[in-house]
Amino acid sequence: VEIICVGNELLIGKTLNTNSQWLAKRITTLGLSVTRITVIGDEVKSISRTIRKALARKPSYVITTGGLGPTFDDKTLEGISEALNSRLVINQNALKMVKEKYAKYAREMAHSKFELTSARVKMARIPKEAEPISNPVGTAPAILVTKNNSTIIALPGVPSEMKAIFEESLSPMLKTSSDKTTFFEASLNISGIMESELAPLLDQVMCENPRVYIKSHPKGTEAKPRIELHLSTTSEAVDTAKKNIAKTLVQLTELIEAKGGSTQPRKNKL
Amino acid sequence: VEIICVGNELLIGKTLNTNSQWLAKRITTLGLSVTRITVIGDEVKSISRTIRKALARKPSYVITTGGLGPTFDDKTLEGISEALNSRLVINQNALKMVKEKYAKYAREMAHSKFELTSARVKMARIPKEAEPISNPVGTAPAILVTKNNSTIIALPGVPSEMKAIFEESLSPMLKTSSDKTTFFEASLNISGIMESELAPLLDQVMCENPRVYIKSHPKGTEAKPRIELHLSTTSEAVDTAKKNIAKTLVQLTELIEAKGGSTQPRKNKL
Repeated sequence: VEIICVGNELLIGKTLNTNSQWLAKRITTLGLSVTRITVIGDEVKSISRTIRKALARKPSYVITTGGLGPTFDDKTLEGISEALNSRLVINQNALKMVKEKYAKYAREMAHSKFELTSARVKMARIPKEAEPISNPVGTAPAILVTKNNSTIIALPGVPSEMKAIFEESLSPMLKTSSDKTTFFEASLNISGIMESELAPLLDQVMCENPRVYIKSHPKGTEAKPRIELHLSTTSEAVDTAKKNIAKTLVQLTELIEAKGGSTQPRKNKL
Repeated sequence: VEIICVGNELLIGKTLNTNSQWLAKRITTLGLSVTRITVIGDEVKSISRTIRKALARKPSYVITTGGLGPTFDDKTLEGISEALNSRLVINQNALKMVKEKYAKYAREMAHSKFELTSARVKMARIPKEAEPISNPVGTAPAILVTKNNSTIIALPGVPSEMKAIFEESLSPMLKTSSDKTTFFEASLNISGIMESELAPLLDQVMCENPRVYIKSHPKGTEAKPRIELHLSTTSEAVDTAKKNIAKTLVQLTELIEAKGGSTQPRKNKL
């Protein structure tokens, strides 16, 4: 899975990209792996080029966030359309979704009627081959379009809308395509051993446990070391995953304590 | 400027990428613009390909974070070296920096002497053409290497180390190359007008103020709209930047209030 986040606000550091972390965590937990996250600005050329490059790497999914709304700076659909050599057309299902939302708002706000302005119709102009996905929280529909063996999914940038669509419509689909692979992780907090002393121990343990990926996260300094070791594995059988992690944890603990370090397991979750 | 963040922990959603937001904000404030942020895993091939693709877009700077430490999963220097068709060599200045750090730790921890293990020497093995940059907080030096007209700077992933090196060594350099361009921004909080009603007003104001970029950030829902408008501009003269933003703010406020919306300026900072 590749994630592409569209938005100048991310490039000027105005907004912290919590969307990509949320998506990465959910996708990983569903048993798929995120291989790349790209953040680009609100420019059609930049969006279309980035999507083309992503498709060339043949991921199962390209998930974009941002740029689906009614304003001029919402350019993701135009970018996707250009990347697919397609064109934007008013999708009748999408238009129905947008109309129903505004009719609902009109009732809630005790207006008699809402105009279907061009800014509102814009949200229903999607690439010709795409299908809209209903947005249970906001107005702009998400879209889904498949090209060769990659499925492009465009989600809104507003976190509550992105999360709601993901949970309602994407999570079941991604779960199916993950072949029931389970992602399993554990953490070990270490003190009293420097990261540079730990390095050869990790080499040894990784070599003997090739299914387990271990990453060290220094939290203190080299001189007053506190290190979090993060262990992760994927496996089709939950038992195998758990066993691999448990075996690696025991081995690591022994080696670290033999070097004078102390360890505290931190969490151990499925 | 392109930012490349290296780390599996970012791709599995374990870590929130606060580094890229911090860098993006600092770089923007210094008058340069960030055009792309890419997050990739701890793989030499992936790092070298991503750096090559970035260089092909001819940015002034490519700044990487993460992957400079002593452990096997710290692969950024190998990736940069491969991207430059270079090779890693022990840099004597870098080795001196690493040695001095460990000698200091040895004194602090009342050890008589620290071994210069291969894991520690690893941090001084940098691409042949690169220079090390001293790390005032941690052990691993940052590095700087220029290829054609792009300067690649590799910073550590530990936020305190990344920030310290940026402020001490990079900030003065980036400031010089930004030609004294100033980035200026302001925000306007709006209620009582839907984003889809706002869209044509923004088109009009943007068209009349081509130097000012306006982006709408919906905070409520379409039916109960609260929208933050973010205005930004860059200019060589602070006065011009301020004037452009002020004029745009006045125009926007008038148009929005004429449509029944209300506005509260939020902040107005240089």
